[in-house]
Amino acid sequence: MLENLKNAVYEANMELPRRGLVTYTWGNVSGIDRETGLVVIKPSGVEYDELTPEDLVVLDLDGNIVEGKLNPSSDTKTHLELYKAFPQLGGIVHTHSPYAVGWAQAGEDIPCYGTTHADYIYGPVPCARHLTQEELDEDYEKNTGKVIIEEFTKRNLDPVAVPAVICHSHGPFTWGKSPAQAVYNAVVLEEVAKMACYTRIVKPAADPAPKHIVDKHYMRKHGPNAYYGQKK
Amino acid sequence: MLENLKNAVYEANMELPRRGLVTYTWGNVSGIDRETGLVVIKPSGVEYDELTPEDLVVLDLDGNIVEGKLNPSSDTKTHLELYKAFPQLGGIVHTHSPYAVGWAQAGEDIPCYGTTHADYIYGPVPCARHLTQEELDEDYEKNTGKVIIEEFTKRNLDPVAVPAVICHSHGPFTWGKSPAQAVYNAVVLEEVAKMACYTRIVKPAADPAPKHIVDKHYMRKHGPNAYYGQKK
Amino acid sequence: MLENLKNAVYEANMELPRRGLVTYTWGNVSGIDRETGLVVIKPSGVEYDELTPEDLVVLDLDGNIVEGKLNPSSDTKTHLELYKAFPQLGGIVHTHSPYAVGWAQAGEDIPCYGTTHADYIYGPVPCARHLTQEELDEDYEKNTGKVIIEEFTKRNLDPVAVPAVICHSHGPFTWGKSPAQAVYNAVVLEEVAKMACYTRIVKPAADPAPKHIVDKHYMRKHGPNAYYGQKK
Amino acid sequence: MLENLKNAVYEANMELPRRGLVTYTWGNVSGIDRETGLVVIKPSGVEYDELTPEDLVVLDLDGNIVEGKLNPSSDTKTHLELYKAFPQLGGIVHTHSPYAVGWAQAGEDIPCYGTTHADYIYGPVPCARHLTQEELDEDYEKNTGKVIIEEFTKRNLDPVAVPAVICHSHGPFTWGKSPAQAVYNAVVLEEVAKMACYTRIVKPAADPAPKHIVDKHYMRKHGPNAYYGQKK
Repeated sequence: MLENLKNAVYEANMELPRRGLVTYTWGNVSGIDRETGLVVIKPSGVEYDELTPEDLVVLDLDGNIVEGKLNPSSDTKTHLELYKAFPQLGGIVHTHSPYAVGWAQAGEDIPCYGTTHADYIYGPVPCARHLTQEELDEDYEKNTGKVIIEEFTKRNLDPVAVPAVICHSHGPFTWGKSPAQAVYNAVVLEEVAKMACYTRIVKPAADPAPKHIVDKHYMRKHGPNAYYGQKK
Repeated sequence: MLENLKNAVYEANMELPRRGLVTYTWGNVSGIDRETGLVVIKPSGVEYDELTPEDLVVLDLDGNIVEGKLNPSSDTKTHLELYKAFPQLGGIVHTHSPYAVGWAQAGEDIPCYGTTHADYIYGPVPCARHLTQEELDEDYEKNTGKVIIEEFTKRNLDPVAVPAVICHSHGPFTWGKSPAQAVYNAVVLEEVAKMACYTRIVKPAADPAPKHIVDKHYMRKHGPNAYYGQKK
Repeated sequence: MLENLKNAVYEANMELPRRGLVTYTWGNVSGIDRETGLVVIKPSGVEYDELTPEDLVVLDLDGNIVEGKLNPSSDTKTHLELYKAFPQLGGIVHTHSPYAVGWAQAGEDIPCYGTTHADYIYGPVPCARHLTQEELDEDYEKNTGKVIIEEFTKRNLDPVAVPAVICHSHGPFTWGKSPAQAVYNAVVLEEVAKMACYTRIVKPAADPAPKHIVDKHYMRKHGPNAYYGQKK
Repeated sequence: MLENLKNAVYEANMELPRRGLVTYTWGNVSGIDRETGLVVIKPSGVEYDELTPEDLVVLDLDGNIVEGKLNPSSDTKTHLELYKAFPQLGGIVHTHSPYAVGWAQAGEDIPCYGTTHADYIYGPVPCARHLTQEELDEDYEKNTGKVIIEEFTKRNLDPVAVPAVICHSHGPFTWGKSPAQAVYNAVVLEEVAKMACYTRIVKPAADPAPKHIVDKHYMRKHGPNAYYGQKK
């Protein structure tokens, strides 16, 4: 069942420690099969060097477990909310990568300081607000997803153009059209958060990159006339 | 004698350089057998790549050497004081991991800026005060333990909920129910100290995470209704 | 055709990930054969672990592709402008190495704080201005080269003595008499940018090194009476 | 001739890249045989992965080459001045390790913020002043040594208790009773410079460690009643 997706989710999970994005079990990747609406996700608290494709958990979008003997990631409901709200998503990643967490703990958007950022993320990485006591009591993980969606709606952001968010006092979520692309964006986000940290050291009051340069870089990779890379 | 504990203490010691927490001999792990009250600890000044389980030193809680040809860690009396005051402890670690030392040298508690911290340590990591000249002259290592205990007593902290301390101008001690868990907490502390350092770069006046979020994260891992991970 | 140059450009490209200067495909190296005026450059968006010497693209200085099946680096026109303006150049490198990008995003020259810098780069690493909307619309990559050249002309800089530039909100270009030397200077620039970042942490208002020390270090390696290293 | 010393100097040099203290050729180690007054030092500009014990250069304390086909390190005269002024020295190291350089470029002593520092270096790491134009013109490398010695004389420092210095706008020199101990102290210095940098991030106005704690840590390792480590 969903062998290709399971392999893709497994490989994407294993890429996290290879890229230095996770300590212990502090991260998870999921993927969705849009035809069946089924989601494959890492089990909760399983060490990466013990993880096998068979350990992955399959759920429907209501959170019912369809296959798998282990508990799914404790962040599963956040993933499900994002899949339901953003139909363009094929994969989602959550990590506690340290530079992105550094910004999340500061409660600040990561400004688009330069072209490395603009090549992949259009505009600042939004920092989503804290959950209220009521939201937290009702359903912490589900409402973490709801608050991210609220942030994107309020700012009128396209989740394809902005494939990353940081949650205040918590950490990053990234996504993409596949689990592999979601992990790619998690790596990009950590690099961008690191460079932005260095920029703050050099010049705490640095300005973001001007709009025409941000537009140019995003568009030469992702616009209708993109010319970066090879024709596929 | 105490073969299992010795192996556990040996493995926990060897994990320190693997995790990048020690330079040269700047760290030590101990473990205690609560039935006999015997403590196993790394010998003083022995290089990690030359350490064998046979080199470990066995002492009683009064510091009498029961087995072993080498001098125990110079920090042994600090470990013994902590074991006597906190009966929940099964293992203790001391390192000079650089980010935790950076905070210890600043003489500041590490604020609980986010969920990575709250997942393992409930509230700020306390910074214990300097020893006085008199305390130092009387017995430096023993009184280092006493000052840590004083700090926990004064603040009414539970050493299970707060398994880490930094000593002003010195460095961290962490602990757990076993030597392995004490090392796990040493890794967590260094990650948390690093992330907090990045947060200070981004926003020197950043606020700690709100209490309801700290509570939620600590409780979903450690509370009576914890739901992180797999049922054991 | 140009087998030696292709091998040199290939080896220089592969040195970038070995030295930790690139994430994914964020960098490129070119080399020029001054007799024929032909340039060899990395193809656009090809992963380093899949790159072969046969993938390299050969162009003339007007940008006409002479050999190669793949699209050349999207930064090719910047390289070509620099080769045309600075006839001493034999190789050019572009990366997004994080410390150099940190300074580029701050929009500040990297001050010559010390002898590590002065040993290779005479004076500050200039930060070239943003392109205007008009320059960007006309030809972004070509005008990136033009703006670098304008900066060197305006400041009366010798590109042999200053083999590096950072472009505001973007990142570094370095060069040398060969592709290998251009990569060497890319490594130097990243080290120098890192050290300058640490200096800003220690003392935000630190002064650059005095002129007589900068002169001495540059000249003992590169002046007419240089005495560093071995006679060749 | 001096085979044991040559091997010791060779091994000490090779330890520098293993410990991550040098990029390219930016470092050198020497050792001295006090009976003959002969010094063995790395040749100038030779890559570490090509270095062999046979490449090392033997000189007398006046700088006359006694053996070796290659030019000695360009910093040789600095080493010779230090050996002549400080008869306790058996080995000397110069590197451009990045955190120590960060402090040297800021022109500030590295404060003794904690016990990691106090365990090996008694009091702040002194920052030696810039050479004047006249000193530089007369003999740059020799006068670099003279200025270090002046700094130790002026402050009444014992080079055994303070086995490290940073030269303003340049970088560190460390030493010890042997080439291996000099390298050990170079590693210590870089760790201490890193931790001090983190302390500045956390609290720019942090105070140095109190004198009684510094004294205690230095003395428990190096004083007449030292009790760290094993009896030899």
